Amino acid sequence: MTIKTAIILGVGPHEGLGAVLSKQAGAKGFHVFVAGRTLAKVASVADAIKADGGQATPVQCDATEEADIIKLFADAEAKGPVDLAIYNAGNNMPGGIEGMEADYFEKCWRVCTFGAFLFAREAAKHLLPREAGSLIFTGASSSMRGRAGFAAFSSAKGALRNLAQSAAKELGPKGIHVGHVVIDGGIEGEKLKTMVPDYAKARAAEGRLINIEGIAEIYLMLHGQRRAAWSFEVDVRTHNEP
Amino acid sequence: MTIKTAIILGVGPHEGLGAVLSKQAGAKGFHVFVAGRTLAKVASVADAIKADGGQATPVQCDATEEADIIKLFADAEAKGPVDLAIYNAGNNMPGGIEGMEADYFEKCWRVCTFGAFLFAREAAKHLLPREAGSLIFTGASSSMRGRAGFAAFSSAKGALRNLAQSAAKELGPKGIHVGHVVIDGGIEGEKLKTMVPDYAKARAAEGRLINIEGIAEIYLMLHGQRRAAWSFEVDVRTHNEP
Amino acid sequence: MTIKTAIILGVGPHEGLGAVLSKQAGAKGFHVFVAGRTLAKVASVADAIKADGGQATPVQCDATEEADIIKLFADAEAKGPVDLAIYNAGNNMPGGIEGMEADYFEKCWRVCTFGAFLFAREAAKHLLPREAGSLIFTGASSSMRGRAGFAAFSSAKGALRNLAQSAAKELGPKGIHVGHVVIDGGIEGEKLKTMVPDYAKARAAEGRLINIEGIAEIYLMLHGQRRAAWSFEVDVRTHNEP
Amino acid sequence: MTIKTAIILGVGPHEGLGAVLSKQAGAKGFHVFVAGRTLAKVASVADAIKADGGQATPVQCDATEEADIIKLFADAEAKGPVDLAIYNAGNNMPGGIEGMEADYFEKCWRVCTFGAFLFAREAAKHLLPREAGSLIFTGASSSMRGRAGFAAFSSAKGALRNLAQSAAKELGPKGIHVGHVVIDGGIEGEKLKTMVPDYAKARAAEGRLINIEGIAEIYLMLHGQRRAAWSFEVDVRTHNEP
Repeated sequence: MTIKTAIILGVGPHEGLGAVLSKQAGAKGFHVFVAGRTLAKVASVADAIKADGGQATPVQCDATEEADIIKLFADAEAKGPVDLAIYNAGNNMPGGIEGMEADYFEKCWRVCTFGAFLFAREAAKHLLPREAGSLIFTGASSSMRGRAGFAAFSSAKGALRNLAQSAAKELGPKGIHVGHVVIDGGIEGEKLKTMVPDYAKARAAEGRLINIEGIAEIYLMLHGQRRAAWSFEVDVRTHNEP
Repeated sequence: MTIKTAIILGVGPHEGLGAVLSKQAGAKGFHVFVAGRTLAKVASVADAIKADGGQATPVQCDATEEADIIKLFADAEAKGPVDLAIYNAGNNMPGGIEGMEADYFEKCWRVCTFGAFLFAREAAKHLLPREAGSLIFTGASSSMRGRAGFAAFSSAKGALRNLAQSAAKELGPKGIHVGHVVIDGGIEGEKLKTMVPDYAKARAAEGRLINIEGIAEIYLMLHGQRRAAWSFEVDVRTHNEP
Repeated sequence: MTIKTAIILGVGPHEGLGAVLSKQAGAKGFHVFVAGRTLAKVASVADAIKADGGQATPVQCDATEEADIIKLFADAEAKGPVDLAIYNAGNNMPGGIEGMEADYFEKCWRVCTFGAFLFAREAAKHLLPREAGSLIFTGASSSMRGRAGFAAFSSAKGALRNLAQSAAKELGPKGIHVGHVVIDGGIEGEKLKTMVPDYAKARAAEGRLINIEGIAEIYLMLHGQRRAAWSFEVDVRTHNEP
Repeated sequence: MTIKTAIILGVGPHEGLGAVLSKQAGAKGFHVFVAGRTLAKVASVADAIKADGGQATPVQCDATEEADIIKLFADAEAKGPVDLAIYNAGNNMPGGIEGMEADYFEKCWRVCTFGAFLFAREAAKHLLPREAGSLIFTGASSSMRGRAGFAAFSSAKGALRNLAQSAAKELGPKGIHVGHVVIDGGIEGEKLKTMVPDYAKARAAEGRLINIEGIAEIYLMLHGQRRAAWSFEVDVRTHNEP
């Protein structure tokens, strides 16, 4: 029997969204290609999946490098048909317009948008002949509107959203389910816990951070929808929004 | 052990969305209050739930009558705490602006919006003290924008969406999960099958109608989300959109 | 030479938006039908227009009464073809969902939305045969999204926006310019000045209230656009938004 | 007396939007810096402004080159304070996702978005100390949503819109008026007339192309608004939309 593969790109430490997505996909029976910039991190997540009886392959991958994305899909396809492809790369990069370096603005787009385009294109190439599979992107509050002090990130995430909409309209009728998950608030994940531990703890206690397992379940839910009842966009927030 | 109740308002024939929502809720173990205008129809759906080993109570109810909505919630609460309340009433009412009767425009709002307000208010009264439960509304493509020839329905559905958003922001921090499901296209349900059977058959064969079981699963999925990862709005469409 | 008429419905005291719209229309050479609930107020505004050398007729009119709206258009047409029709009725009506009376919720819709439908329909009847004229509605921040504590107003204004969009798509190709002005913030007008004078004064000094002459100019600008370059929606805010 | 300067970037042939914007700004008394890729074209437009008694300087400028944008603003400021800066660069670049080259996707973003960021940053540097001036961007239907076959353009224009929103929220309270004009349809301009003359002629005869003078007037209207009544976004379409 053919095993199906999943690609999760944008995986960092264990408590981050990429890792939780990978583990949930592993638990669903996918052979998961766990992809991210830092080999030690993706290897650790892949090990955890295997320790739980799942299958996984760690892949060091720069989301902004065309060759890396092409190889990522080719390697996964060599193991089994890619049925779930999630693009989760992209970091918030704050900063005012007046003092922003051109490289900084560009870098934000490269990770959030350009890599997503490469990922969508390679997914299209491999999934279209089978007329099946899901392609899901991670959005944010900034996907929906600009914000003072966040021009680079808002612009890149807005670009990603319109890209995802275009992909949905283009690939949907050909059997590819394209989704966009709008994470509307702070995540109770590794980033906040590491960078601002006290803040994260206090916020979490108040119910003001979004649960990361719950976010990941939305991606898997989208993947599980029948093709005559697909959702494109789902937001997610905590009940006690700041 | 207390049994939880669900109220589904806007239930018609077996193949309609209201009926499928009722059956899915019944299968999940709720005692379902199956509510709609026509007693024979809601009774038949309730019987089907019971025939499958579930629990159900049929309720004849006019969604636009305050007393009916108050009684609907009171009766359900007498059986067990309402944990899921779905407002699914509302019909598309086409017509151009120039020739539209004032009563026609008003009627569309009464069923789509005013009834939803009464429903939301009664849900708030009963659910808030427990800080738990879900309140979900049925939206449509017309919720998102106006359309020539559909001023009454677009207006009423736009009103419902903003009402649902207000309810989400007001009741969410107090533990009530408010959701809005945007059905973006024609449903492969009883209405089309009865009114335009050939059209419905041809459209369905092309994959151009939305699967009704799949739509209903979104409501139940929303209800199942943990409170630290709630979605407000989910769209649903067929892969092969017209 | 035929004189063109303008109808401004929703006119209160001199410093309100309705009055300023009336005066600007009067200064543009329209015979202005100054319509509102209180005869003394509309009469005073009409007098001011005449004192400035313009033409005006005060009309006591309940925006929610079908007969009043029908008569308003008939009377204006008897004086000259209506070329500009502005629906400016509607008040913010705050309140939480749980404790809201059904009549209160309904009243908000009657003034904000139902009256606007009647107004749009009568405008369509009179303007369509000439394939010319503008029909403009007053929106608010609440037109765009729901807000906790403002379910009635958000719902009614969302309904108005979708109605205006439907009207634009339906009547636009037939030569009627439909517009929607989204007033996104507090107005430096009569309401705030009267009800909360100290607050209004402080806010105005900080540049945090929107200038009412500037708002009104947008309506007149929309009316002046050529039919091959029409705007539907224009927002307006102060530079120093709260 | 100091003469105010305007920068219009994205100027091509005489019948294009950039040229018409330049001429309207010239007629308003600005010394216009007419900037675009092709010297012959911007020189011709500048000559036309001067022939009409206005003032203009042609500038050959690559919108995607940081040094060019920096110099463009510095040169204009040397003549007089920049009071109006319009970013009109950007071409629709169609194409499906599966077969799109990475360079093509990137190029679309460079012209539509990256150049706009550079332009916004330089505008901010020069205008902020004076707390005055307007910065206006050209949007399109694709700014609002993705579309099959237009992933690159939709993505880039979505990015531009969120950038403009960020700029508005960041620079508005400091006195810079940021605007975004959404051109929602085909323009009766040089591109269509040259590339598909018969189509353009037939469409224009049906009133299905947007008038270019009317579009340009919206930019100048935005510039003329007082700071206590600013619009951010204005759409423009023809009455007889396709």
